Amino acid sequence: MTAGFDMTDLLRPGLPAGAAEWAGDPPFNFVGGHNDPASVPFGGFAEAAATALARHGPALAAYNLGGSPQGHLPLREFVAEALARRAQMPTDPSQVLITSGSLQALDLVNAALVAPGDPVVVEKCTYAGTLSRLAALGAEVHGVELDSDGMSIDHLDEVLESLSRHRRRPKFVYTIPTVQNPTGTVMPPTRRIELLETARRHGVAIFEDDCYADLTFDGERPPTIRSLDNGGGGVVYCGSFSKTLAPALRLGYVVADWPVMSRLLALKTDAGSGALEQITVAEYAAAHFDDHVEALTSALHNKCQAICGALRDSFGDLARFEAPRGGIFVWVALPDGVDTDRLVAPAAARGVEFNPGSAWCTDPNYGASRMRLCFGHLRPEAIAAGIAALADTVRESLTRPASRGV
Amino acid sequence: MTAGFDMTDLLRPGLPAGAAEWAGDPPFNFVGGHNDPASVPFGGFAEAAATALARHGPALAAYNLGGSPQGHLPLREFVAEALARRAQMPTDPSQVLITSGSLQALDLVNAALVAPGDPVVVEKCTYAGTLSRLAALGAEVHGVELDSDGMSIDHLDEVLESLSRHRRRPKFVYTIPTVQNPTGTVMPPTRRIELLETARRHGVAIFEDDCYADLTFDGERPPTIRSLDNGGGGVVYCGSFSKTLAPALRLGYVVADWPVMSRLLALKTDAGSGALEQITVAEYAAAHFDDHVEALTSALHNKCQAICGALRDSFGDLARFEAPRGGIFVWVALPDGVDTDRLVAPAAARGVEFNPGSAWCTDPNYGASRMRLCFGHLRPEAIAAGIAALADTVRESLTRPASRGV
Repeated sequence: MTAGFDMTDLLRPGLPAGAAEWAGDPPFNFVGGHNDPASVPFGGFAEAAATALARHGPALAAYNLGGSPQGHLPLREFVAEALARRAQMPTDPSQVLITSGSLQALDLVNAALVAPGDPVVVEKCTYAGTLSRLAALGAEVHGVELDSDGMSIDHLDEVLESLSRHRRRPKFVYTIPTVQNPTGTVMPPTRRIELLETARRHGVAIFEDDCYADLTFDGERPPTIRSLDNGGGGVVYCGSFSKTLAPALRLGYVVADWPVMSRLLALKTDAGSGALEQITVAEYAAAHFDDHVEALTSALHNKCQAICGALRDSFGDLARFEAPRGGIFVWVALPDGVDTDRLVAPAAARGVEFNPGSAWCTDPNYGASRMRLCFGHLRPEAIAAGIAALADTVRESLTRPASRGV
Repeated sequence: MTAGFDMTDLLRPGLPAGAAEWAGDPPFNFVGGHNDPASVPFGGFAEAAATALARHGPALAAYNLGGSPQGHLPLREFVAEALARRAQMPTDPSQVLITSGSLQALDLVNAALVAPGDPVVVEKCTYAGTLSRLAALGAEVHGVELDSDGMSIDHLDEVLESLSRHRRRPKFVYTIPTVQNPTGTVMPPTRRIELLETARRHGVAIFEDDCYADLTFDGERPPTIRSLDNGGGGVVYCGSFSKTLAPALRLGYVVADWPVMSRLLALKTDAGSGALEQITVAEYAAAHFDDHVEALTSALHNKCQAICGALRDSFGDLARFEAPRGGIFVWVALPDGVDTDRLVAPAAARGVEFNPGSAWCTDPNYGASRMRLCFGHLRPEAIAAGIAALADTVRESLTRPASRGV
């Protein structure tokens, strides 16, 4: 049985390319949505795990801890209570589905609603993982202009009007209203109401992705769009513990009403999300969430100031950006004509990794001169050194235009 | 914004039916693959979590703990070492992908290989979750006869020969060779070699699902089919910690070679499986796995004897079954003409839930007079009472034949 069998003959047509072997992180890693290592409350997690295991240990013998497939009830109760208190969104635990990260929330909502060819409306710069998922599903993606308050309502109206003229009903408007990814803006309450009214006027649902919403630097969090819908049934909402507690924990949630929730549950065929993480986070969050998030946000704000300062120092006029209102990334525009995809290799040679803008935009050409820089993971001195190395990379590319055509 | 918005208008065509609201477990729950609550080593988990968090806590700030997307290296090292030692399968950690339960392993392997209309060969009675997944993917499923040593090689040869005559190459033979689900048989080594030779002669790959393999009651575990392939590249393998440690933990694994592994990784877009569960299980398993499994298997063997005794006492000649060689379920044949799907409601009225056989068979008619009974979760006295109630249900259905036509 040593004769080689080539299983690649059997691969399904149309698969994504195979992954490259993992090569480790570079010294200056500005990608990946990682968080501040010094802020992980791992001692608190250990205490919480011990308490939770003493209470729920034998229940681990049953899938879903012997409870609802919507997830561990105390965790859903915490999510519901926290959304009511922190985001002015009265929520019942029966409206909460715990997911394996908010990526599973995206997958489930997309699977319930999006068929190949369906139009979907998104912010013109948005989360690359959403764009890649919608592309894999064969959705027809329409981008809406952004300004410093988030999605432009005039342009949204135009896009929806145009789709309507062509008798195309989008499956939803996907928005990241609070700490927009990648631009870092926060949509004010009045615009949220306008967004809701505009979508409703066109008979279009909203998918509100609030996974960074706990991380505003001023601690202010507008009411969610779903809360402003006031039980109207037109908004599905998702959030995450990855950004507030730890990315390597895979816990997110969807908030939806039963007609949608029942379909999401039917599609969630994973026999539940990890119970040790659910019971530990439920125990930890009930006692410590607010204090932890306040300390984390302060640490992230310091890092944000470090990267903004480093960008000004090292890039000068070469980089345009607005300081983000929260979160872990800054969206940077370089001079027209720079192609950030072409900077990946020379930056890597200097130990720098960043997100080229093309993958984060519905129009890759618009994204080509832009990049997303995540600042949560590195220490401030590494941020400064990495940004200096990145600025050198950009300057070098500008002074050697011939090489850009290669 | 209180006017109702009906999002069900927007649901994708062809969705599965919505889930029913969760109603809690009945007193006599013989479904679900749950395990023995008294055997969950939750104290050991708490100690392991504390140690692991002290060591890896800050790394939780990065997706995949800042490591390979294949999963936490110490856990992959444990899997590789345990497979070499317990299943005679030399394995390198680079061949191991940690998944969110072995269900995700099934989903990834299926996604890499199975397109609509593809033939797939399975045991004629097999895991319902595999059959439902293959149906959802539009696969053409072919069942192979079983005997008390597992899949019949003569019939497998016949099925593959017939497919070959029609120029149909199956994507794989899916088999559960050790503690076959639902029949509880263990395939002897000689038959494993025959299975491998037969598949190879027809140019067909094997997908070996070994998720119950640690739970043989005599502690004997034959070499895996993948090990007998001896690096030949023709077998993808999966396993699970759900059955040995706790079902509510969502940790499984795939063992595959890089040409397949690289594709599975590209399809695993979940940003990693839960890291708290990975670091805790790695820490716990390295010190305690063998001892724990020995104690667990002994407890399950006792429960197995309890249910087999209860079946003989309460059903007498009405039930035919072979005592399983390990695991947590027994496969029971009732008299021809009994339709176990029709027994679900009357059994529920007596507080009993079981798996009707139709969902566990490629030929639902063959499964109609059969049922799967899981015995891991209930205490022995509840097992006896539940089996007595189920026997009453069956007898009642036999004495009232008119009602069976309703």
